[in-house]
Amino acid sequence: MFEFQLISRCPATAARRGRILTAHGTVDTPLFMPVGTQGTVKTLTPEELYEIDTGIILANTYHLNLRPGPEIVRKAGGLHRFMNYHRPILTDSGGFQVFSLAKLRRVTDEGVEFSSHIDGSLHFFSPERAIDIQQALGADIIMCFDECIPYPSTYEYAEIAMERTSRWARRCREYHKKPGQALFGIVQGGIYKDLRLRSAREVVALDFPGYAIGGLSVGEPKEIMYETVELLESHLPADKPRYLMGVGEPEDLLEGVKRGIDMFDCVLPTRLARHGTAYTATGKLVVRNARYAEDYGPLDPECDCPVCRRYSRAYLRHLIKSGEILGLRLLSYHNVHFIVKLMEGIRDSLENKSFQLFHQSFLNKYRIKREDDS
Amino acid sequence: MFEFQLISRCPATAARRGRILTAHGTVDTPLFMPVGTQGTVKTLTPEELYEIDTGIILANTYHLNLRPGPEIVRKAGGLHRFMNYHRPILTDSGGFQVFSLAKLRRVTDEGVEFSSHIDGSLHFFSPERAIDIQQALGADIIMCFDECIPYPSTYEYAEIAMERTSRWARRCREYHKKPGQALFGIVQGGIYKDLRLRSAREVVALDFPGYAIGGLSVGEPKEIMYETVELLESHLPADKPRYLMGVGEPEDLLEGVKRGIDMFDCVLPTRLARHGTAYTATGKLVVRNARYAEDYGPLDPECDCPVCRRYSRAYLRHLIKSGEILGLRLLSYHNVHFIVKLMEGIRDSLENKSFQLFHQSFLNKYRIKREDDS
Repeated sequence: MFEFQLISRCPATAARRGRILTAHGTVDTPLFMPVGTQGTVKTLTPEELYEIDTGIILANTYHLNLRPGPEIVRKAGGLHRFMNYHRPILTDSGGFQVFSLAKLRRVTDEGVEFSSHIDGSLHFFSPERAIDIQQALGADIIMCFDECIPYPSTYEYAEIAMERTSRWARRCREYHKKPGQALFGIVQGGIYKDLRLRSAREVVALDFPGYAIGGLSVGEPKEIMYETVELLESHLPADKPRYLMGVGEPEDLLEGVKRGIDMFDCVLPTRLARHGTAYTATGKLVVRNARYAEDYGPLDPECDCPVCRRYSRAYLRHLIKSGEILGLRLLSYHNVHFIVKLMEGIRDSLENKSFQLFHQSFLNKYRIKREDDS
Repeated sequence: MFEFQLISRCPATAARRGRILTAHGTVDTPLFMPVGTQGTVKTLTPEELYEIDTGIILANTYHLNLRPGPEIVRKAGGLHRFMNYHRPILTDSGGFQVFSLAKLRRVTDEGVEFSSHIDGSLHFFSPERAIDIQQALGADIIMCFDECIPYPSTYEYAEIAMERTSRWARRCREYHKKPGQALFGIVQGGIYKDLRLRSAREVVALDFPGYAIGGLSVGEPKEIMYETVELLESHLPADKPRYLMGVGEPEDLLEGVKRGIDMFDCVLPTRLARHGTAYTATGKLVVRNARYAEDYGPLDPECDCPVCRRYSRAYLRHLIKSGEILGLRLLSYHNVHFIVKLMEGIRDSLENKSFQLFHQSFLNKYRIKREDDS
């Protein structure tokens, strides 16, 4: 089962408050999906994710296809049972990784031949194969196989890839029959407005239960990302969820919501944590910085997560400096919690008709600290 | 405060059932102390240790002196507050690491000059300095600074080191006045029986609240370790706890208890976990082995820990093979749980006067599986 309910709209912006119903539970939108690339949100257990109250998590078809392989997950009873996470899961199609991480061998309309970034072994993804794998994984939401282009790309290449993405979307749509899995279409087209609009028109014509905007947050200026989302807003059906793939930073989440986005995913909370950086209400904090060596206060005085309640900056810095896994765990927990609570704040503000105020006051405070990332 | 209560003795062996009372709580012996070298039992939180019900954990003076430094821990209010672990903690004196991990510069009766294994910086440990640092750390049980020799060592060197250990024990005893911290003496002497007996006599004469046997499990044959413990049993006061340092494997714990040992510590449960190996009732299991790729059963069918209740061997193998931190966490949890439950089983058997039966049946089963360590 899959259903999207649009609950309310912001009177002043394109922001929306909604709800997604799946066989693994109901989640509120706008929401952020922590990324569990290889079948685990890095360093965290499902119980911790429940505690944080993540709505949907994302897992990766490209990676799970290579390791452990879709058959092993299917025999386990699907990804929910394999990783023991019993809330909604979304799998991406592998398109992004095939075109960015793997070594490409041959791209044709039929599909993509590529070699694994792990062991060089040869693999072939077609729209049908990407659906087969995602059916074996058994996520609640699955994605069409798309051709992702880097930034910058020429208009010519962007057009070829966008057109292929449309053809592949049609094949995915026709091939996918498994009930209980909602297949989302993906809009491509790079930074070219006419291509984006054509892509939206072609993909929306296929009538998917949800739509993603792909190919952003790949290095282009933020203004282009925001403009592209804004452009597409009125061209995506209002009664379907909209997912901005691979985004992002707290600012981007606010700007995306403002432009009508319902779903986001990004590796940043866990990746920053592994680099020793924490989100706080006043901006990013580089935990390893010497200034925190004797700082016995919490990571973020405004945060009520167990990490902030139980540990000091001095201890967290010690763990990070000493290369202790517990440090990565605790920062990952805090960062995912931070982003999930930000989305909660956004949803609350939408209910209270105060989204613009929330948006402004969050960013004013968030821009106080300006530490270099480590 | 510190008190040792001898509750009962095994009628057939030297095994004892006891209890240690500290300001941070009462723990039952025989017990195993998981090692938190740098102020964290690797990969685990204090809450998980409470859940596993570890009695005492061990932290390391050598490492904490280098990082974050004793002053930072002291200003945090001591190690319990720094790491947020509010049960008993024991710190070793750093002797073992100074003589095995650091680069020695100069060893005299005054103390040891060494350079850090981390950054080469120069440090000096004397008996008094080791006590100062341990007082700053604030553990419930602290250890005398000793000279640890490798295996093999000549009789001459073993004698010199043993005599110095005795002189240093006296200095530690005289220097340590802080109430609330119990200072244990350490018996050295290598594999030489007369040196071991002399060491025991000299250290016991100083009247410590507890005694450790150091310098074993450093590469000597297991029979020598067992014989040395057996030799010392009647030479250590029955009303004081006895701690066999750096031991060990499940077999060694049983053999040590049988010979009158009350306390053990070892990095093995967490180290094996990080190498992808799990303890099970039928022996060690190398999780990454291909035979577990499609094994959807629990790590150890006889274990009731959350890892065994929630995850399959196939999933754990996937995590380990993929280098995921969650795999190291889950195996660490299971392994520490396994050893702590083994000690619980030993204590129960002592209460039921069935220690010998427990000893035999545990080992019979534990020796079934013979997998190569990864």
